[in-house]
Amino acid sequence: MKKIINDPGNVVEEMVDGLAGMYPQYVERIPGTTALLRSNKDSMKGKVGLVSGGGSGHEPAHAGYVGQGMLTAAVCGQVFTSPTPDQIYEAIKAADQGKGVFLIVKNYSGDVMNFDMAKDLAAMDDIEVRSIVVDDDIAVENSLYTQGRRGVAGTVFMHKILGAAADQGASLDEIEELAKAVLPHINTIGVALSAATVPEVGKPGFVLADDEIEYGVGIHSEPGYRREKIKPSKELAQELLSKIDESLKLSADKKYAVLVNGMGATPLMEQYIFSRDVLNWLAAKNIKPVFTKAGNYMTSIDMAGVSLTVMEVADDKWLDYLNYPVETIAW
Amino acid sequence: MKKIINDPGNVVEEMVDGLAGMYPQYVERIPGTTALLRSNKDSMKGKVGLVSGGGSGHEPAHAGYVGQGMLTAAVCGQVFTSPTPDQIYEAIKAADQGKGVFLIVKNYSGDVMNFDMAKDLAAMDDIEVRSIVVDDDIAVENSLYTQGRRGVAGTVFMHKILGAAADQGASLDEIEELAKAVLPHINTIGVALSAATVPEVGKPGFVLADDEIEYGVGIHSEPGYRREKIKPSKELAQELLSKIDESLKLSADKKYAVLVNGMGATPLMEQYIFSRDVLNWLAAKNIKPVFTKAGNYMTSIDMAGVSLTVMEVADDKWLDYLNYPVETIAW
Repeated sequence: MKKIINDPGNVVEEMVDGLAGMYPQYVERIPGTTALLRSNKDSMKGKVGLVSGGGSGHEPAHAGYVGQGMLTAAVCGQVFTSPTPDQIYEAIKAADQGKGVFLIVKNYSGDVMNFDMAKDLAAMDDIEVRSIVVDDDIAVENSLYTQGRRGVAGTVFMHKILGAAADQGASLDEIEELAKAVLPHINTIGVALSAATVPEVGKPGFVLADDEIEYGVGIHSEPGYRREKIKPSKELAQELLSKIDESLKLSADKKYAVLVNGMGATPLMEQYIFSRDVLNWLAAKNIKPVFTKAGNYMTSIDMAGVSLTVMEVADDKWLDYLNYPVETIAW
Repeated sequence: MKKIINDPGNVVEEMVDGLAGMYPQYVERIPGTTALLRSNKDSMKGKVGLVSGGGSGHEPAHAGYVGQGMLTAAVCGQVFTSPTPDQIYEAIKAADQGKGVFLIVKNYSGDVMNFDMAKDLAAMDDIEVRSIVVDDDIAVENSLYTQGRRGVAGTVFMHKILGAAADQGASLDEIEELAKAVLPHINTIGVALSAATVPEVGKPGFVLADDEIEYGVGIHSEPGYRREKIKPSKELAQELLSKIDESLKLSADKKYAVLVNGMGATPLMEQYIFSRDVLNWLAAKNIKPVFTKAGNYMTSIDMAGVSLTVMEVADDKWLDYLNYPVETIAW
């Protein structure tokens, strides 16, 4: 393992310091935790708080989405490990402005359990907390760490949409309703060229041959659904889009948002080429997405690969939310 | 070589399509070229045009910095290869609004020569063109492809500062003066953990042992100044900062902007940890930078490593320019 770190056991602590130090205009550390709170307190006033988080290693998720128009706070667990309930609870308290707090949780058993426990702790303080569990990864049902589908890059669309609504003064009820409405329209699926190396483990989560890829790998190196020899970008796009098409029933009559997401070690050059192939495949079906974005948004440390998220924009208001201005590190 | 591409000989063509397709709100392709022009034509009116570019493989540089408040156009050469004079000339013509065009060129012999030739072509059209050659890399004097110091990540600060000035209506004379004033205050130096693989070459530019790093490597895998065993992030920060300190004579009485730049395959987790160590080193000298940023800004395809740019903010107006709002893909 060759990494720019100090102590493998202390990476999250130091990373959170780095984030808060480099971006004081957006985030500040909640004392005694590895959670980051929005620095712009005025922007929080009178608004529902939005809290997300999970294991670290998915940077810029989730701290990179903390700021006006998006999240209120993000809790950074140890690498690929759910944050503890007490840390989530501290983030909820810090995010609460008397209008309630909404939690955006990726569907991993540990996260679901710990965010739920934090919700119970907050209830004892009379903070009203609701939540959504994002399960956008259509690659496989059930997985290591997960009952049902995993939560992956599509979570960032959820952050963005709910964040815009919260900034515009939506109530906790309205945000919950919006989250439930959006969720089934978000589908994600990825392909891995290599696995991530967790610093404390020191070696990759799995090994692929020099010419091999795996479809449907999770963001913690969970197994996907097929290994085969690497194919041209066009064919990778075709494979992933076919799966999404089966699930979402893509149609030229509907509107779509597309997120091409790099897994950490995949250069933008490859992401843009893959994006072109995605757009071409969609164009052949007379689909021109109304919103598109490519880059490293929900990574898996140093994994090579991409994921593709397609969201049906079933309500034009969702598009306004996607385009709503934000003040964050990474959106 | 395992990459998400189609034809290794066609990566730039397809990447430019992908960029223009994913980000039509910011960039559009200049017909017949692999150059990208700002989509927002109104924002160009009455302003000096700013054109940059160079070999591809440094994404998001330079197309990611095209947009209001930053570049007017960016020319994408073949991978690690200077764009041709005719392509640069087309970008100059497209960027010109009658107020002249300013070229930001990284110091590589091919780039310097081809941008100069394009300048001559434009002069025949009575387009007034000036330029600056950025040579911020303090690692080595002269190099493969370069007389003098290389131009690297600090170029992005130049884009940002000149872009803000141009957007505020600075004349060609004023922009040239500003560029010359800023240039000597920008210093960059990097460390590589692995080399980039150019798609058409198919193997890394050099090979480091599993526990080895090289200081001062260029963004085209040009040799650096020392190889040794990997050290903790803290010591890497110390090494790079000492070199910058020798050159800039860092002082608590001065203001600094800091850019921590990932080379393409280095996760944000590592970049943030390294950032923390940079900030700590500076804090020990009572220096708190007035502007900080970390992420992949000037990459070397899939190279692993980071570079550190420190700019002395010798004039408060430069800080305003750094903070000036932009509409781009990647700033």
